[in-house]
Amino acid sequence: MLKRVLSGIQPSGHLHIGNYFGMIKRAIEWQDKAQTLYFIADYHALTSIKDPQNLRQYVRKIAMAFLACGLDPIKSIFFRQSSIPEVHELAWILASITPFGLLERSHSFKDKIAKGLSPTLALFSYPVLMSADILLYQSEIIPVGQDQKQHLEIARDIAQKFNNTYGEVFRIPEPDIQEEVAVIPGIDGQKMSKSYNNTLEIFGDPQEFKRKVMSIKTDSTPIAAPKPIQGSILASLYKLVAQPSEYEEFIESMKKGGQGYAYYKKLLLEKLNAYFKPIRERYKELECNPGYVDEVLADGAYRARLISQETIRKVRQAVGLLD
Amino acid sequence: MLKRVLSGIQPSGHLHIGNYFGMIKRAIEWQDKAQTLYFIADYHALTSIKDPQNLRQYVRKIAMAFLACGLDPIKSIFFRQSSIPEVHELAWILASITPFGLLERSHSFKDKIAKGLSPTLALFSYPVLMSADILLYQSEIIPVGQDQKQHLEIARDIAQKFNNTYGEVFRIPEPDIQEEVAVIPGIDGQKMSKSYNNTLEIFGDPQEFKRKVMSIKTDSTPIAAPKPIQGSILASLYKLVAQPSEYEEFIESMKKGGQGYAYYKKLLLEKLNAYFKPIRERYKELECNPGYVDEVLADGAYRARLISQETIRKVRQAVGLLD
Repeated sequence: MLKRVLSGIQPSGHLHIGNYFGMIKRAIEWQDKAQTLYFIADYHALTSIKDPQNLRQYVRKIAMAFLACGLDPIKSIFFRQSSIPEVHELAWILASITPFGLLERSHSFKDKIAKGLSPTLALFSYPVLMSADILLYQSEIIPVGQDQKQHLEIARDIAQKFNNTYGEVFRIPEPDIQEEVAVIPGIDGQKMSKSYNNTLEIFGDPQEFKRKVMSIKTDSTPIAAPKPIQGSILASLYKLVAQPSEYEEFIESMKKGGQGYAYYKKLLLEKLNAYFKPIRERYKELECNPGYVDEVLADGAYRARLISQETIRKVRQAVGLLD
Repeated sequence: MLKRVLSGIQPSGHLHIGNYFGMIKRAIEWQDKAQTLYFIADYHALTSIKDPQNLRQYVRKIAMAFLACGLDPIKSIFFRQSSIPEVHELAWILASITPFGLLERSHSFKDKIAKGLSPTLALFSYPVLMSADILLYQSEIIPVGQDQKQHLEIARDIAQKFNNTYGEVFRIPEPDIQEEVAVIPGIDGQKMSKSYNNTLEIFGDPQEFKRKVMSIKTDSTPIAAPKPIQGSILASLYKLVAQPSEYEEFIESMKKGGQGYAYYKKLLLEKLNAYFKPIRERYKELECNPGYVDEVLADGAYRARLISQETIRKVRQAVGLLD
């Protein structure tokens, strides 16, 4: 039987190619080898997004983006977290066996406060809602980055404690940690990230996209001279979107010299645009068809609930909330 | 229009006359002067009751007890907290605007740990679930003891913060603090409390009840001598269940002397049994009619949901979880 794999997706209005190659592409690849559930984490988003209009927009944009990037709503269960509010009931029941100290030792609370988020109860108890997200769907594999590794440990601890206290109800989830995460450089060479304002947005204005690609940071190697490959943002980005043979050609040309950086930037721009063309076209189609996106999410919610109801019933029975 | 009054009830298998005169009687009196909601706090109980069979029993016993003590399920909305799991969704949304520090300053967490409860996340976030209980039903008056006063302040703070952040959704609840709480003495003279093992259980075994009344602590005043009234457990308890004229007679007789304490204990026992006779009879009827209790709680859940759905819809709209 196929393993059940769960991924949570932060609502966002600004998807960049760092998100795509760092997370989206890899997450979507799971749908061909497992039973996948993808949820848009709008409850989690409340810890940082206080503007209701933004939240609505970001949820819709991320839904369209994932569908445009290839999420297949037949193969996968794609839904909004807030379509299954039962997750909070489970979170409370888990909270009643979660040691306070376990959360005090969690890095994320301090990290997030350091990043300027308000220190709220929700931010503190975030790992327990994440545990409920995972356990509600009896998920077996959770693809996570290194930063989420500790949260998955917490989910495993809580699941084990529940099973020990009340009897076997939960599957114990396993992390799938991507060991070598390709760091996608932004246009200034730092990791591409909204907070560094160095991103290339996938679904933004094409002129702005071009302007940003053309302003990618380069060194002052003269036109005639060979260009360094090591540390070249252009080469790193080109590699992501080109065929291996095209990439070889690209760096051979750089090594040979004779072309200025503007030449390589144009090549990169063309290749990026070619790569994202079908994705951008699907996105545009989805923008014109909001009813379809609603239907997909409603169908996903229905299928997610079939699983969640079964778990909640077992949990309520186990703790004594059902006769 | 009648004010809306909400009371939460801890599930318990051991109701004693201290509970009755300290809380139950007063809570039920509200049903004749307000729109009352009473819920059995089974989600809160999970923080202390880990045995599912106990939880089921305690919920049923407290439901029968409140009905036996006069709760009128036509006048009042009487339901299990766990019949409306939406309260946890609201709790999460409130948690996302609840400062961590507000809860750190709450006494109850430290108090409960000092009493031997495990320091869990649920225990820490208890005041936020209590806030959700209150706000979900747009409650206006909350009868509380002094020990719950701080929690009600937290609920008010959170409601105001929500209204300021997202627009007016919640009524701001007012506490109804009973200033002079009659301390009901136990059979050893300390406050009657399960933890002191000095209780007179209302629905327990009659022989045991008798044995305990007859073992109420008295002093060594000789039979012929006048008995002190000040500090007399017998007189305090007699006052609760007798008519004023009967109480006068009782203490006149004590002051006069000539009777031993056994005589007064017997008088007290008779009066207690007479007082609780109709309540005990109703309780027995309910024990024979579990279907009726289920129906009452199902009807209460239905009526509670009519209110909660309206609030949840407004809240989801305000924060951006609904279009």
